[in-house]
Amino acid sequence: MSNQAIQEHTMINGVNVDQQEETIQAVKKQPELAQFQFRAHNQWKGGGHNQIHADTYYGTCQELQRNESFALTADQPSTLLGTNKGPTPFEYLLTALSSCLTTSLVYQAAAQGITIDRLESDYEGDINLQGILGVNPDVRKGFEEIRVRINVDSNADTDMLRGLLENSPILDVIRNPTPVKIEFVTE
Amino acid sequence: MSNQAIQEHTMINGVNVDQQEETIQAVKKQPELAQFQFRAHNQWKGGGHNQIHADTYYGTCQELQRNESFALTADQPSTLLGTNKGPTPFEYLLTALSSCLTTSLVYQAAAQGITIDRLESDYEGDINLQGILGVNPDVRKGFEEIRVRINVDSNADTDMLRGLLENSPILDVIRNPTPVKIEFVTE
Repeated sequence: MSNQAIQEHTMINGVNVDQQEETIQAVKKQPELAQFQFRAHNQWKGGGHNQIHADTYYGTCQELQRNESFALTADQPSTLLGTNKGPTPFEYLLTALSSCLTTSLVYQAAAQGITIDRLESDYEGDINLQGILGVNPDVRKGFEEIRVRINVDSNADTDMLRGLLENSPILDVIRNPTPVKIEFVTE
Repeated sequence: MSNQAIQEHTMINGVNVDQQEETIQAVKKQPELAQFQFRAHNQWKGGGHNQIHADTYYGTCQELQRNESFALTADQPSTLLGTNKGPTPFEYLLTALSSCLTTSLVYQAAAQGITIDRLESDYEGDINLQGILGVNPDVRKGFEEIRVRINVDSNADTDMLRGLLENSPILDVIRNPTPVKIEFVTE
């Protein structure tokens, strides 16, 4: 019976496109299902060492909790006065972009019946630390530019695939201004 | 002799402030030392599952390699058609922001002789998936807003600490437009 249930689903690129279509129809009827909130907690461990946990999130009109919390470690390499216990914040940003571009392409392709057989991508971001170090205030503090190279095997051409990437939320956040509100609280 | 060498370093907030000052002076003399490049490689594993590696980077006028590559897993929860093998791209972005804000505050404080005894922070980002699902093209695809709550024990007041956060490169990337160039390559 569980085999029968599995066979009823159409999978494209590892995505359950029946469930995908049901989600779209459900959101059309009840738009508030699409309001999500993601969260992270950061615990400073000393120097450049950070421990981050991601656990609960909100979506489909309810609080959602995973079985276990995801733990991540961030640090700086010794070149940047750290102890190299984990990737830098810069590499976490490229990780966010890369996984969002990949998933956006794969999910959008699945919805349109486009098959993706292989998908790899490389990311590089240039940053000039003169800005952060206060040596030259005219230098931007963030990435000057991020470059992405995508290597894909698909039955669709690259112009079609390029269009699908434009749906990526993290690409939107990086390319366009996003408000960040910061408040200090005391326990 | 190695004990003596260690004792010669002044550590504030776990940051070697002697080395920090040496770095600033070195960059003033030779600004090209401050040009860095960070990288990531993404391998799609099927559906919403991504494997990311961060390894080499460029800085201080040379290619730099860690002893081992950092491996990260990204996925979507089952609510979003994934298998929940790792944090989402959204949570990776909050991880990047949180570790960058924390490190920026801690490093800048150290440089000014401000001590940080404890630092925790919480992040939440709102996203309305109507945009990505194509249900409502007027809805933004990326985060509508990110909110940060910082809980810190320090000998400086929060206005002073708030100013130090403005130095964060990832805060700059999220608040302001950053160019992302995407190219498709074939092997």
